[in-house]
Amino acid sequence: MKKVGVAILGFGVVGNGTYRILKEHRELYQRTQEVDIVVESVLERNKERAISLGVEEDKVASSIAEVISNPDVNIVVECIGGIGAAREFVMAALHAGKTVVTSNKELVCKYSHELERAAKRHNAGLYFEASCVGGVPIIRTLLDGVQANNITSMMGIINGTTNYILTKMTNGGASYSDALKEAQRLGYAEADPTADVEGFDAAYKLSILSSLAFHTKVPLGKVFREGISGVSQEDIQDGKRLGYVLKLLAVGKQSENGIEVRVNPTFIRKEHPLASVNDSFNAVYITGDAVGDVMLYGRGAGDLPTGSAIVSDIIYAATHSENKYSTFKNNAAAEKDTKFVSDFRSAYYIRLTVQDKSGVLAKISALFGKNNISIVEMIQTESGEDKATLVIITHETHELAVRNAVAKIDDTGVATVESVLRVVS
Amino acid sequence: MKKVGVAILGFGVVGNGTYRILKEHRELYQRTQEVDIVVESVLERNKERAISLGVEEDKVASSIAEVISNPDVNIVVECIGGIGAAREFVMAALHAGKTVVTSNKELVCKYSHELERAAKRHNAGLYFEASCVGGVPIIRTLLDGVQANNITSMMGIINGTTNYILTKMTNGGASYSDALKEAQRLGYAEADPTADVEGFDAAYKLSILSSLAFHTKVPLGKVFREGISGVSQEDIQDGKRLGYVLKLLAVGKQSENGIEVRVNPTFIRKEHPLASVNDSFNAVYITGDAVGDVMLYGRGAGDLPTGSAIVSDIIYAATHSENKYSTFKNNAAAEKDTKFVSDFRSAYYIRLTVQDKSGVLAKISALFGKNNISIVEMIQTESGEDKATLVIITHETHELAVRNAVAKIDDTGVATVESVLRVVS
Repeated sequence: MKKVGVAILGFGVVGNGTYRILKEHRELYQRTQEVDIVVESVLERNKERAISLGVEEDKVASSIAEVISNPDVNIVVECIGGIGAAREFVMAALHAGKTVVTSNKELVCKYSHELERAAKRHNAGLYFEASCVGGVPIIRTLLDGVQANNITSMMGIINGTTNYILTKMTNGGASYSDALKEAQRLGYAEADPTADVEGFDAAYKLSILSSLAFHTKVPLGKVFREGISGVSQEDIQDGKRLGYVLKLLAVGKQSENGIEVRVNPTFIRKEHPLASVNDSFNAVYITGDAVGDVMLYGRGAGDLPTGSAIVSDIIYAATHSENKYSTFKNNAAAEKDTKFVSDFRSAYYIRLTVQDKSGVLAKISALFGKNNISIVEMIQTESGEDKATLVIITHETHELAVRNAVAKIDDTGVATVESVLRVVS
Repeated sequence: MKKVGVAILGFGVVGNGTYRILKEHRELYQRTQEVDIVVESVLERNKERAISLGVEEDKVASSIAEVISNPDVNIVVECIGGIGAAREFVMAALHAGKTVVTSNKELVCKYSHELERAAKRHNAGLYFEASCVGGVPIIRTLLDGVQANNITSMMGIINGTTNYILTKMTNGGASYSDALKEAQRLGYAEADPTADVEGFDAAYKLSILSSLAFHTKVPLGKVFREGISGVSQEDIQDGKRLGYVLKLLAVGKQSENGIEVRVNPTFIRKEHPLASVNDSFNAVYITGDAVGDVMLYGRGAGDLPTGSAIVSDIIYAATHSENKYSTFKNNAAAEKDTKFVSDFRSAYYIRLTVQDKSGVLAKISALFGKNNISIVEMIQTESGEDKATLVIITHETHELAVRNAVAKIDDTGVATVESVLRVVS
């Protein structure tokens, strides 16, 4: 039976989860995959921690040099995170010809060129299923499940923290700050929640997933990004009344006009399969020109779900001859030719506070008309004293047109724009 | 660039869909998969049909012998269906060392041993993603996406016809026979709908999927099967009132007690992700010991979705060295040791017509108690003249206990059992 030696770099939540899965399933993989996978080495700054979690002392390495010079190590699993030591260690492993499996979205997003070049040059494998949407095999699906298709669109709920917060705000009526606090208490959100709530985490993943779906590198800088920290309970309740649910959606589209990639809070119809993806669950909804609509749903984070993705990559690497060093199938020349859409189209939800007097509605309607924005619904939801709240849902239109109209509304002096959110029409 | 020649056997809906995808995407696969896939041969009894659909006359073969003796053909795609010519042609192709891609669930379900043996002996590949759940890459996911897990349970809506009928009955209030007629009019159901509505089609697929999930052959004969032809509008409305949706569910479970496989109409909570899988859409909900819950959703049938799965298999075969002839990883010895659960456990929905007089309720309650069945809810939904309708939801209990109780109820003379349906508790 083929024997495969694994080294785990970083023994935090994900590293330890991966270790436990490999230990507990060794016999399962021997029986079902015809491969014997053994953890040969663990690199962890806090050696005591690794030992207290069951790693034999002689398997705890002292340096990356020790790991990569170990001839029993075939596959190096990186669970450190960030782009300091992780990048250095992964590059060292690839240069030594070791296959790398990583869960590091920031590293893969920002340095895929460098990693792929090194992997190719040294004939090493490079796998990163765990970098996107935890245990959900979305990368395997894009590469080996729907690869017969021209993928036209991808919509994902790919950040568990923000989905938890929005679910609490939608179903529990919590305020943004209360929902965030609850997420922090449960360990879903970090003390500094910026990376999650401002959409950076989702943007990394969207960059990776859309690069794979559209067969060209989609750099982070091309991803339009807006977080959920400005979302209010009023927006969510208005949406609910109109049959919509608010989600932090990562959207990738490919058309003749180019590639469009964006992360923003978006209303979707409550009947859409993505609308019932709640709490910390994640899902990705793909549309291909042959397969039609396909959705994958599951846990986007956690020690064992993420470990499941890492170990699936290890098994894949161990049982397939072809090294997947060139998954993005891109090169600098091709990338230069890629067009990106800057002025994308969408339907919009716009909430205004207006002065409750005659002529105001006509003024606002005229302003939208002048910007070629046509209105699906206009509802007065509340009024008090001399003010009223107006909610407008538009037909699909250009983002720039909406920005123009919104700027002009503020100039009128009779209305204030409270929020602008996108709607999947 | 690697060139791969394909032969398509059978040029019906799926064969033609596959042909169109391959033709239209040839350049895409050259660019993104680094492989040039060419249709070298089409075998179709009705030659005129193939030619009228765009196949060059000199590519239309006259016999399977002509196809398999063609050195330009590397991969044979079987889209004939059934187990007559399809079985003969597939075996001939495997014996000639050609890799086979098939969408034939009945063939794979009933003859996997024979096919795998031939594939292995002649070093040919054997792929059948399209045999289960159309374009949804469920087989790829089981083999390469969640293979790090011990799969404990699988629940699927894997027949589009019955899901369409049940959706119409649930949301539109249609009767079973009206919904069936509508499905036939739309081409979702055949003139003789038996294979779909009685659960045979779902049972083939469940046999294949659970064999892969549980790493041992699960023969068709072990699948408990019950169709939807006995489902009434009253059952569906009762369920709705209690917060349940009725689906034809294919369930596979693996535990210390053995493997449990069944296809039956089942109530699931309306909040469950499977409950919102409507119309002809399909979905499979997998639970693994590491990944937790994962769901795949999409189109289970149709020319292009099924063609998408076939072409994904073709590309996979063309770009991977290892032949997947032994996907079931089973042998006769292992199979003999496999235990199957016959008396499975579930919660139940039981609808009775009872005589509306004192003492009847007590009698029935006592009967359930005697069979160790504990009741979650008991609701009187209707009454007229001297009769009343009683709906009972039980806690999880043994199927045999319920069958016993139901037989005894009919014996009492004061109550009649109208329906018994399973409930996902």
